[in-house]
Amino acid sequence: MSKAAYAELEAKWAEIKDLENAASILGWDQEVMMPGGGAPARAHTLATLSGVIHDRTTNPVLVKLVQRLHRARKSLSPRQRRGLELAHSKVMKATRIPSELARKLSMQESRGLETWRKARQQRSFKLFADELSKMVDLKREQARLTGRGGPAYDALLDDFEPGMTMAVLDPLLDALKGVTVPLVQQVIDSKVKVDLKPFVGRFDVEAQRGFARTVAVAMGIDLGRGRMDLSTHPFCGGIGPDDVRMTSRYDARDQRGGLFGVIHESGHGLYEQGLTAARGRLPLGGAISMAVHESQSRLWENNVARSRSFWKHWAPKFKQAHPQLKGVTVEQIWRAANAIRPSFIRVEADELTYNLHIILRYELERDLVEGRLEVKDLPAAWNDTMASMLGVRPKHDADGVLQDIHWAMGLFGYFPTYSLGNLYAAQFMESARKALRGLEKRFEKGDFATLRGWLAENIHRHDRIYTAEQLVKRVTGKPLGVEAFARHIRSKVNEIYA
Amino acid sequence: MSKAAYAELEAKWAEIKDLENAASILGWDQEVMMPGGGAPARAHTLATLSGVIHDRTTNPVLVKLVQRLHRARKSLSPRQRRGLELAHSKVMKATRIPSELARKLSMQESRGLETWRKARQQRSFKLFADELSKMVDLKREQARLTGRGGPAYDALLDDFEPGMTMAVLDPLLDALKGVTVPLVQQVIDSKVKVDLKPFVGRFDVEAQRGFARTVAVAMGIDLGRGRMDLSTHPFCGGIGPDDVRMTSRYDARDQRGGLFGVIHESGHGLYEQGLTAARGRLPLGGAISMAVHESQSRLWENNVARSRSFWKHWAPKFKQAHPQLKGVTVEQIWRAANAIRPSFIRVEADELTYNLHIILRYELERDLVEGRLEVKDLPAAWNDTMASMLGVRPKHDADGVLQDIHWAMGLFGYFPTYSLGNLYAAQFMESARKALRGLEKRFEKGDFATLRGWLAENIHRHDRIYTAEQLVKRVTGKPLGVEAFARHIRSKVNEIYA
Repeated sequence: MSKAAYAELEAKWAEIKDLENAASILGWDQEVMMPGGGAPARAHTLATLSGVIHDRTTNPVLVKLVQRLHRARKSLSPRQRRGLELAHSKVMKATRIPSELARKLSMQESRGLETWRKARQQRSFKLFADELSKMVDLKREQARLTGRGGPAYDALLDDFEPGMTMAVLDPLLDALKGVTVPLVQQVIDSKVKVDLKPFVGRFDVEAQRGFARTVAVAMGIDLGRGRMDLSTHPFCGGIGPDDVRMTSRYDARDQRGGLFGVIHESGHGLYEQGLTAARGRLPLGGAISMAVHESQSRLWENNVARSRSFWKHWAPKFKQAHPQLKGVTVEQIWRAANAIRPSFIRVEADELTYNLHIILRYELERDLVEGRLEVKDLPAAWNDTMASMLGVRPKHDADGVLQDIHWAMGLFGYFPTYSLGNLYAAQFMESARKALRGLEKRFEKGDFATLRGWLAENIHRHDRIYTAEQLVKRVTGKPLGVEAFARHIRSKVNEIYA
Repeated sequence: MSKAAYAELEAKWAEIKDLENAASILGWDQEVMMPGGGAPARAHTLATLSGVIHDRTTNPVLVKLVQRLHRARKSLSPRQRRGLELAHSKVMKATRIPSELARKLSMQESRGLETWRKARQQRSFKLFADELSKMVDLKREQARLTGRGGPAYDALLDDFEPGMTMAVLDPLLDALKGVTVPLVQQVIDSKVKVDLKPFVGRFDVEAQRGFARTVAVAMGIDLGRGRMDLSTHPFCGGIGPDDVRMTSRYDARDQRGGLFGVIHESGHGLYEQGLTAARGRLPLGGAISMAVHESQSRLWENNVARSRSFWKHWAPKFKQAHPQLKGVTVEQIWRAANAIRPSFIRVEADELTYNLHIILRYELERDLVEGRLEVKDLPAAWNDTMASMLGVRPKHDADGVLQDIHWAMGLFGYFPTYSLGNLYAAQFMESARKALRGLEKRFEKGDFATLRGWLAENIHRHDRIYTAEQLVKRVTGKPLGVEAFARHIRSKVNEIYA
């Protein structure tokens, strides 16, 4: 019985996945390809599709099927049991969201996105406030319906980081803050000024694009199973593993956003391309969590591409792409790649202050959702916290509260996964170094395939067989902590800002 | 009662339209953006989406609703009656196609497309034959289920040209053949050799692309509500009127395919962009038929862009884009744009022989569907008919039976609409000339907005309020015939091939 029932679950799951894949490509298109005039029709289309997905996920036949399998779970194989656990959790959560709310959320997402874009252009949070308020109300409603009696914010967090709660998150982020704040002070006190010349100046955008692409391909990105395009806000979308779509943006005056952005999104892309294709439409298929996803992008961006050995290999090609850099040394490039300076924009932030940007957002969104902060008070709260935490105050909302796309899209509970990703990345990287002798020497020779192979073998190919908690213990022997990240960042800061 | 019921029909229709729009964008993406590796996942996605659309269209609640409205149609307004007629026809036709067949057709379409692409590359029909046979079987099955007792081919024709039958089509195409064949003979007998220099040689592809884009914008294409991209097989896709996507391809050695291709797809694009946005998700919204759609592309491609007055305006800019054309006259360009020469490839064919390419395909696909021709005998039948009709015989299948994407996608009954489009175009153009005094003088001055305005006013904005039959009588005062096209083409042939 259970075997046939599980096969039936897989068949139903596959069709839901197909529709989610449709929405994913349409979402990519909306960001990257769609002409401006297409926005209203796209909002309708995505809302209807979202409704169909919701209807299918909450279809009584499927609900009964997962409940029946859940009762008989002892007769399933361990893999099936895990697949069922994932399906059961998703289906039962969806049943707690009425179709009408799902539809409203999707419509609000499209509307919020368009309004956010205009507000950001005009640097005015006021233009966006109403749409954001509507979104916060909808997310609170969602949390109220899907939560299991705990805080509303936990219910939202679970959508991105299954099983994560504020009770686990708060001590981790507190410890991270404890590591970070003194180091930021050390940087400021040191008076060291890193020369940014290798990245800041005037650089041909096509040359930047060409170099970044070469690096991505050397990392192992397969462009026969992916694309690289331009968009305002870089992201990795599409459908893993065989149609992965990375975007980036380039700035003629500062190469860092373009280059490290491409490496970051390619880290995501390698995870997606490393998933097991045969599981693509099954409950076990896909990435584990946002934080594990982010660990893959951060590992490549910060632990690999901001290392000396990476630049020992790439410096000659980098200088060839930008002839004005003739004479610049590997050491200069490495220091410039690791320059630390408190600033406004999260996606341009250095590796150290980045986590303070996240902690700021986490505190604000948590308070919004928990009803301790009103939308109208958000810009002031943002600017005040920014000033106290990083010592800088944005002059307008585009440099402050309007800089990120997330809240416009209703992604509350997403931000903390960025910092969790940094912690996972450092911990995974220490294990990779132990497992793969002479990893730095390999980088110097341009061998990135060995690291990629290790990540694919130990992380990517397992899809969702393990929880994030299980995976980190399996790969590193320890639960997630801040120690590896602290060692990694302290050693850099101590060397550059002595 | 009927008012509320009609509103309910509109709401249900709108969601089906949203899903069709999703499929349309995903189809465009498949052709234009998708990496090769994405094909299997895309096939699943489009098949599932097609199944959902079919389920929604044949949902018993909707079926009962249209039946109930159909019985009470006298209580509806004339517009509602027409909307209902369109909805009733679509819904009742869909109920005759089981979900399983709809799913199979969609899967076969994706598979056929991939196989056709490979077979075409390798110039081997044999690689494609099995997939085509499967498609023909599925289409026969579809025709058997949806037909109303008439010939199977009529049932398929109705999907593209509502109401059209072989009984109407055969005399029209016979008359067209009667006009064409002697003119082809006249061209051959005349021994005139038109100098193709203005279009054939070596031309920078980016310059071609830039010029074609300028022409499209001058025609009135709004790139804030559309895109222009590259694809192997040019088409106009997306969602009218606010997200219209035209594609083209350029050849450094022959400009005609690129330039007239862009003008052709822009003619389609103007029709789509001219539709009434407020009706976009209603039963009355959208284009009338494939032939009327094609009339708009042909009118711009052949009746406008192959006229002397068009080139009187554009020749200087054209020569500026391609400096090697210095000294070439308007007369030379006009003659080269209208050169007639029997050849293998439909999409590269001249205005006169083009219709013979269509008549060839029509006869073969009709015989395939009616069971008078087997797939394995298709290449020989193609080559023989080609030789007898046009005096040329393809050397390999890529120049013959594999050249078009249509059959791979299951588009049987589509080809005749191209020639019907030519007939409509000529007939509409004669009416436009009567209504708009001095139209040629306007072209010479670069005024294409007046013609576009007339087309929008008389054709585009009405969506599907009129049938094709009603429209042509309303706009031209006559039913569709071959006379206007005959006058148009005879005058060109007589002047150039005297």
